[in-house]
Amino acid sequence: MTNKAFPLGKGRLEEVAAEHPTPFYLYDEAAIRANARAIRSAFAVFPRFFLHFAVKALPNPAILRILREEGFGADCSSLPELLLARMAGISGGDVMFSSNDTPSGEFRAAADMGAAINLDDITHIDFLDGCLGGLPELVCLRYNPGPLKLGNAIIGNPTEAKFGLTGEQIFEGFAALKGRGVGRFALHTMVASNELDVKYHLETGKLLFSLAVELKRRLGVELEFVNLGGGVGIPYRPEEAALDYGALACGLKALFDGIVCPAGLEKLAVRVEWGRVVTGPYGWLVSRAIHRKNIYRSYIGLDASMADLMRPALYGAYHHITVAGKEGAPPVAVCDVVGSLCENNDKFAIGRALPAIDVGEASGDLVIIHDAGAHGRAMGFNYNGKLRAGELLLREDGSVVEIRRRETVDDYFATLV
Amino acid sequence: MTNKAFPLGKGRLEEVAAEHPTPFYLYDEAAIRANARAIRSAFAVFPRFFLHFAVKALPNPAILRILREEGFGADCSSLPELLLARMAGISGGDVMFSSNDTPSGEFRAAADMGAAINLDDITHIDFLDGCLGGLPELVCLRYNPGPLKLGNAIIGNPTEAKFGLTGEQIFEGFAALKGRGVGRFALHTMVASNELDVKYHLETGKLLFSLAVELKRRLGVELEFVNLGGGVGIPYRPEEAALDYGALACGLKALFDGIVCPAGLEKLAVRVEWGRVVTGPYGWLVSRAIHRKNIYRSYIGLDASMADLMRPALYGAYHHITVAGKEGAPPVAVCDVVGSLCENNDKFAIGRALPAIDVGEASGDLVIIHDAGAHGRAMGFNYNGKLRAGELLLREDGSVVEIRRRETVDDYFATLV
Repeated sequence: MTNKAFPLGKGRLEEVAAEHPTPFYLYDEAAIRANARAIRSAFAVFPRFFLHFAVKALPNPAILRILREEGFGADCSSLPELLLARMAGISGGDVMFSSNDTPSGEFRAAADMGAAINLDDITHIDFLDGCLGGLPELVCLRYNPGPLKLGNAIIGNPTEAKFGLTGEQIFEGFAALKGRGVGRFALHTMVASNELDVKYHLETGKLLFSLAVELKRRLGVELEFVNLGGGVGIPYRPEEAALDYGALACGLKALFDGIVCPAGLEKLAVRVEWGRVVTGPYGWLVSRAIHRKNIYRSYIGLDASMADLMRPALYGAYHHITVAGKEGAPPVAVCDVVGSLCENNDKFAIGRALPAIDVGEASGDLVIIHDAGAHGRAMGFNYNGKLRAGELLLREDGSVVEIRRRETVDDYFATLV
Repeated sequence: MTNKAFPLGKGRLEEVAAEHPTPFYLYDEAAIRANARAIRSAFAVFPRFFLHFAVKALPNPAILRILREEGFGADCSSLPELLLARMAGISGGDVMFSSNDTPSGEFRAAADMGAAINLDDITHIDFLDGCLGGLPELVCLRYNPGPLKLGNAIIGNPTEAKFGLTGEQIFEGFAALKGRGVGRFALHTMVASNELDVKYHLETGKLLFSLAVELKRRLGVELEFVNLGGGVGIPYRPEEAALDYGALACGLKALFDGIVCPAGLEKLAVRVEWGRVVTGPYGWLVSRAIHRKNIYRSYIGLDASMADLMRPALYGAYHHITVAGKEGAPPVAVCDVVGSLCENNDKFAIGRALPAIDVGEASGDLVIIHDAGAHGRAMGFNYNGKLRAGELLLREDGSVVEIRRRETVDDYFATLV
């Protein structure tokens, strides 16, 4: 069970909404920091652990700065994400550049920043060499285990995934890199998305640790780090439990001690690139219920839409919903909670039991959509001419600051010639 | 069978790409105009026919201006879409405002423009009255036929749709409007998406024509127009055939003559709000093949991504793909055509048989994704920090002009505080 809390009472939230009209995202700095510390504390069993925050989950420099202060780096996949990391003061090897189907300009930008470059394909060794006029000191290769690893429901089967090198290509790739004078090596994989099962992540660790040993044995390549990727899930549903960082860290450490150390690779650093689990539960989309509708089903219409949060429409994802000030109220009706897009999949919830909800632009209830702190605002679009919501940060001192303003019609028209 | 043509030869397209780096959208003005005229010509069987172009399909004022010149109006669903219509010189009753879960400010903006306002819910009569301090001269109600009409696969069953009033509410609504002094009435429905079967659209016509007669009989309400909505499909697959405008227009006219005229409603105007069929086949996403990858499957990597065209990822939609200069070449391999997003559903095609494709940023083939003239650029997003493509217009004189510039990193950062 997971308690679906929200950091502000109704009165304070109404004050915030009076200053920053709904809809908006709200992120909780104290909770993000506490979670970051819990992660670092659990993984302190590894002398060399590092977390690259997946910028795509929440690409806001104010958040990246907080995470940098907590000792995290950045996982970037495009030039704008590299620039966001730089804005937040994250640079050099604290940045990992993991892209696929990569344009040369982005490889150059990543190299200029001193980022650790992760190659997605065997052909990218030559491509990168051509882009940079030589290979960087450190090169990471992304491994796609294919049939050796079952994907989870969300990311699909690795053999169907466009990412990474095959097992055979990994050996071929590192041999080529070594032959061409590269001196520092790393290995990466990413095979799951939103996976709550510790065992699944341990299997991934075992796969990479074993491959690290095999690379030393067969090629004499000693990896500097393995990056176990991301995909650590969060309990979107209250009946789910969060993944136990301690169990994951200790399980990985046992595998490390059993596989990596006997091979004389005890200096191998362990990295991860987590996004969702770092910020997801500590962000909310706050919206006002403006209309009630009863036809063949009952609807509550919000002033947010799938333009602000696309996961329910794109993935059929569940997001928990509470009503400010009515957290303890019993559910009285089943309804669909919808936005105003002219798309019938613009529904935040279908058939959800909720307390009595007051509607209206002035006096309607504030409806809180939980677990929107990752892959939320980041995935918004402008379909139907919708303007994307802004982002607020609840600081540790209780103040609320805007860290991204709401889009305006001028933003929407900016690219018109 | 539909011929998947592209208006430019390879040489000319490379010239365009030299001036406007890929990826970009290209729209064919001559083809859009010819299609518009074919629609008007087929529907000339109706003395009072009007087409509101669904702005959400292709929200660019340059396109809206062309369509205005061809005698079309606009169907808008948000304030930015109303402003786009105004930019294109479309105003007054040529604008139809069909929204749902509508904020008051958008109703006011629509009323200020003199747009025909289409109410999505019975409660919106009071809401609109409150917004405007009185009801407008003309009010349209949106009908959701619920169990009386089967939805198609894409839009789903009308009883599951959040849109419109029930049959009972339609009578209740018009009675209320009449009682409150509204003098002009209209009726709207929208129950399908991308439907190629003429019969389906004829059934919709029959439903609305019959309801118009019933409204006169039971309430003495004589409608000024019925808006049959949109949902006319296009043949995304070459083995499909386009819908026959003539068959649709004549079929509707026969129903009109059989149902509407005997009831003394021969002055009833027939309107539609089409988007996809108006511009969809006359727009293409042009991209360069930059990488080839062979792992467990074979991939061609483009410099476009699902950030530019989301339909394949969001709906599993088919888009035909050709290679500039290789239109007649035999397919030599089956591959997945992918973009660079760190999302495994960023695939324009899966298992597609294509001619031999050269890859490379400088010399790679230009890959043309067809039927991207509707719900293409309009549905783009910025996930992974991706910048959305620009839009080019191929004018009737053969020149190419930019009608939307490509996004820049400054656009991407514009809302950061």
